[in-house]
Amino acid sequence: MRFAPSEYLSDVRKSVPLVHHITNYVTVNDCANVCICAGGSPVMTDAIEDIDDMLSLASATVLNIGTLNGRTVDSMLAAADAAAAYGIPVVLDPVGAGATPYRTSVAEALMELGPSVVKGNAGEIGVLSGLGGDVKGVDSHGAGDAAESARSLAGRLGCIVAATGEADYVSDGEVTLRLSNGCPLLGAVSGTGCMLSSVVGCYAGASGATVESVASAICAFNVAAELASERCSGPGTFKPALLDALHSLDGSVLDSRARWEEA
Amino acid sequence: MRFAPSEYLSDVRKSVPLVHHITNYVTVNDCANVCICAGGSPVMTDAIEDIDDMLSLASATVLNIGTLNGRTVDSMLAAADAAAAYGIPVVLDPVGAGATPYRTSVAEALMELGPSVVKGNAGEIGVLSGLGGDVKGVDSHGAGDAAESARSLAGRLGCIVAATGEADYVSDGEVTLRLSNGCPLLGAVSGTGCMLSSVVGCYAGASGATVESVASAICAFNVAAELASERCSGPGTFKPALLDALHSLDGSVLDSRARWEEA
Amino acid sequence: MRFAPSEYLSDVRKSVPLVHHITNYVTVNDCANVCICAGGSPVMTDAIEDIDDMLSLASATVLNIGTLNGRTVDSMLAAADAAAAYGIPVVLDPVGAGATPYRTSVAEALMELGPSVVKGNAGEIGVLSGLGGDVKGVDSHGAGDAAESARSLAGRLGCIVAATGEADYVSDGEVTLRLSNGCPLLGAVSGTGCMLSSVVGCYAGASGATVESVASAICAFNVAAELASERCSGPGTFKPALLDALHSLDGSVLDSRARWEEA
Repeated sequence: MRFAPSEYLSDVRKSVPLVHHITNYVTVNDCANVCICAGGSPVMTDAIEDIDDMLSLASATVLNIGTLNGRTVDSMLAAADAAAAYGIPVVLDPVGAGATPYRTSVAEALMELGPSVVKGNAGEIGVLSGLGGDVKGVDSHGAGDAAESARSLAGRLGCIVAATGEADYVSDGEVTLRLSNGCPLLGAVSGTGCMLSSVVGCYAGASGATVESVASAICAFNVAAELASERCSGPGTFKPALLDALHSLDGSVLDSRARWEEA
Repeated sequence: MRFAPSEYLSDVRKSVPLVHHITNYVTVNDCANVCICAGGSPVMTDAIEDIDDMLSLASATVLNIGTLNGRTVDSMLAAADAAAAYGIPVVLDPVGAGATPYRTSVAEALMELGPSVVKGNAGEIGVLSGLGGDVKGVDSHGAGDAAESARSLAGRLGCIVAATGEADYVSDGEVTLRLSNGCPLLGAVSGTGCMLSSVVGCYAGASGATVESVASAICAFNVAAELASERCSGPGTFKPALLDALHSLDGSVLDSRARWEEA
Repeated sequence: MRFAPSEYLSDVRKSVPLVHHITNYVTVNDCANVCICAGGSPVMTDAIEDIDDMLSLASATVLNIGTLNGRTVDSMLAAADAAAAYGIPVVLDPVGAGATPYRTSVAEALMELGPSVVKGNAGEIGVLSGLGGDVKGVDSHGAGDAAESARSLAGRLGCIVAATGEADYVSDGEVTLRLSNGCPLLGAVSGTGCMLSSVVGCYAGASGATVESVASAICAFNVAAELASERCSGPGTFKPALLDALHSLDGSVLDSRARWEEA
């Protein structure tokens, strides 16, 4: 298998995809900024009156259930419908699925509307795949076989599934990639998982949702994190450094540092 | 025309205006912090039960439609009414007007309540002036003659209008200033337009809404951005540097670096 | 009295308490990140459908009324009830109580549900104690005797009360500690009070709510702020430096720098 993440990075930078988000109010600013630094253009709106019109302009939508309520869940369902109508990819981040029944049920309702990508931590994907996982709050506290969970859920939904953790797995149900970039500081900053979903939205918006485009997004984000971890002195200064590193990420550096294999 | 932005900066720092905001949840933290660094004191509340009481204490209110819903639109309308009752300036930032009919209609409803300042990007002001502009998501993608749009809308509304872009125009319908400070990194950070509206809120709260006070806010923000761009290594580290630079901005540096002319 | 804040810091780092928050959308990201850097694990959810299930997993809940509306107030009341049912501490931050009747009434309704800790600025605690204070927006603009306000309110509610300001007072109605760490930059960043409440949530979640645990949280946060103030160039770079400093805070440095006395 030939795989060059820099080709997908170039696609994003060339097309500057407009990435619509309905996301949580905890990390939404980081999602907006990481979207810009990844090469996209973010727009956040969750008013039901706005969804269809905004999605008619967008290249992708990211639906993140980190904080949710009845109003925004309705808007997410409408966004998934509008995305289907306009033929643009939907990236679902099922934050905290498995931690509470409400989150699990909202994630399942959104999965029924045919997302293009489901990206969660290994615990969330384990729960949603039915193969088992442990989610405490919004963090994964262990999962079974993350590769198998991703492959199984992808096969069932007919979409791309990414399960993140110390290693990240991306699968379409047949091909599964194991990615192993990243750094421990990613776990010490709130919302790095949400940020990654926004980067995935950029890549899926620019190149469509494939194992390669999603894996490229993960490689770009995690290689930028590795570079940033050398230019900071803790979690506080890591986040601005991560944005800087992603913004200036060189394609050849990305390809040479990306660590991936078929799983 | 004589114009010294530092005089308005001094007014803000002396009076520390309490600036009420109803703004979007994407960039609200940056708005709060920039308000402090500009010399004001921010307060954010969008509960209808709170509006009248809080506005009775405030020196200005900033209404930003970056994310909106039925509940917060009602609160914005109430805030505009309360501001009129208490005689304090209203700064309207019509984020994304022109991108969707909902945003355009909310912006127009708020414009009918007599804002003191309308500050948008050139695309938004172009659309709202009726002279034409192109807004994709929440970014301007081209506009006609921004100076003419600002002048026309200001004349029609009887208020100050600022249209931002590579050059910024501030008009009261008769006098129009062209401002040309700033740096490209402002376009690589989400919410710099929202932040500027909060700074305008500080200046209008301290000195009233005039071409000079609004232009001074823009000069202060953009000169701080120029200084910050020399002390950062990308969009991530630019934002904290911008806050630092605004907080420590020297009045004589501001006056000497401010680039303005009548348009 | 013997008091070693580092013992409480160790408790937090060992147990990594899951700290639930219903907090404002202005500073919520900072609350999440400071919670991680303090040693805890944050989770934010305000959906009424989610509250009971999430609180069954949590070690503490932080209820912050910085921005509030009917929906989230209902969720806060439900969270206080659920916390009582599960026997976990409730930390109430009555942001802006005294500034508007709505905020004062919500704070009082939450105080009736038996919080474990009430942590506000001296103005807010002065108002809520009935001894008097002045709150403009969300900032304290003077208070009577903060020590006496804290002691009185703690005695009335049967809980721990912390009143922050140039000096901070923590009382259970009998023992009152006066703490005097911190730095001026804390006042130049939006949300440092909210962040402190989240740190208090970590300490109360790990060790229970006592004068010592709450005072340890305040010492840790304020000593980290002192260290950060030497590694920044203004309010913008102070915040990331504060997170870094808290994350790497050494227990013996904490104990040696902590300045406290019985008041």
